[in-house]
Amino acid sequence: MPLKKHTDKSYDMELDELRSKLLTLGGKVEAEIALSMRALAERDSKLAEQVLSADQEVNLLELEVDEGCRRLLALRQPAASDLRFITTALKIVVDLERIGDLAVNIAERAIDLNQSPALRPVHDLTRLAQLCQSQLRKALDAFVDGDAAKAEEVIKDDDLLDALYHNLFSELLALMMEDPRNIRRANSLLFVAKHLERLGDHATNVAEMVIYMVRGTDVRHPHSRENTGQA
Amino acid sequence: MPLKKHTDKSYDMELDELRSKLLTLGGKVEAEIALSMRALAERDSKLAEQVLSADQEVNLLELEVDEGCRRLLALRQPAASDLRFITTALKIVVDLERIGDLAVNIAERAIDLNQSPALRPVHDLTRLAQLCQSQLRKALDAFVDGDAAKAEEVIKDDDLLDALYHNLFSELLALMMEDPRNIRRANSLLFVAKHLERLGDHATNVAEMVIYMVRGTDVRHPHSRENTGQA
Repeated sequence: MPLKKHTDKSYDMELDELRSKLLTLGGKVEAEIALSMRALAERDSKLAEQVLSADQEVNLLELEVDEGCRRLLALRQPAASDLRFITTALKIVVDLERIGDLAVNIAERAIDLNQSPALRPVHDLTRLAQLCQSQLRKALDAFVDGDAAKAEEVIKDDDLLDALYHNLFSELLALMMEDPRNIRRANSLLFVAKHLERLGDHATNVAEMVIYMVRGTDVRHPHSRENTGQA
Repeated sequence: MPLKKHTDKSYDMELDELRSKLLTLGGKVEAEIALSMRALAERDSKLAEQVLSADQEVNLLELEVDEGCRRLLALRQPAASDLRFITTALKIVVDLERIGDLAVNIAERAIDLNQSPALRPVHDLTRLAQLCQSQLRKALDAFVDGDAAKAEEVIKDDDLLDALYHNLFSELLALMMEDPRNIRRANSLLFVAKHLERLGDHATNVAEMVIYMVRGTDVRHPHSRENTGQA
């Protein structure tokens, strides 16, 4: 985000460090998703185990970002756009960490699924996952660049993701009805799809917070405000 | 939380107001869960619709708490335990709002399920929901009282909740295998169960943040820290 420069250069450096740590965290989480989906598509449980250990790095980084935010709040007494940037970072980091948890959940399902013969719709799951990754990347870019227009794209494209999810859902339900022996595996795939859909929701949450950060207005619940007549 | 008193009484009042708004928000979210589960158990879609409108109040309150936190950070330059309290509130409010969203999801499933004859396991779902509500209440009490021991109970009892969820999961899967006509409804109930389990996770998240707030140490990822040898 193009924050205003301060006369105090070390303050700028601290803000830069926070921004760069958040991006590193985002990159690691993205890699976790890719790895968990490869574990599923390539039926390779060793890859799934790598996700579990990668998530520990993510958890550590979350704590570091968290501490960095609190330190800046305590020592720098930020105002205006800096305050919005730091409090947004404090919230975004929670979404990123939970995306990491979802990748772990997918990896665990992969380990389980890899023990039985494959069911068909993994291909569509990969497409869904790719869309999720691209949504996450865009949301993080929007955060770092302070780009509200990009954040709005993420929010708009969540509909695509939901449509893909619902197609997959029907397809998996049909497989279950076709043959009861499919039920357990189709159910596991259904949960993978649900994890991915939630992942998309986290990207949308990040995007909404970015818009708040940039514009100072809240798009999270526009209708609630309209309905109650509050500004 | 028994925060230290300040010589500036209006600062104390602002902190009290923040605390009381968060409790109101928690109460509303709890009521949303209860209402959505009644809509399901009593097969009453009108109740489900009340959840949808109640969630708008929750969303509004979220924004108010959020703004309150940022105002305190900007104007009061809080330090030490006040800073931890406010930054924790800023994060907890996200979990509360998402619990509200889960209640909405349950209400939507209820509306859908109420259009077909009932499947059996709703009773167990009600038990799971009651446990979730009690976990949420305890986590919020722990937050307001700054009671780390109570927060630890919440974290411990999440295992009970998971066990209940897994029992239900097997039971619903068995119903699907028994008769393909059960698949669609059992699947909807499975998602309700999954929503409740996530709700429990949010309560655990709140509890973990309370422990951080009270003790200044982080229990969210103890193993990551141990493994990397960081304090």
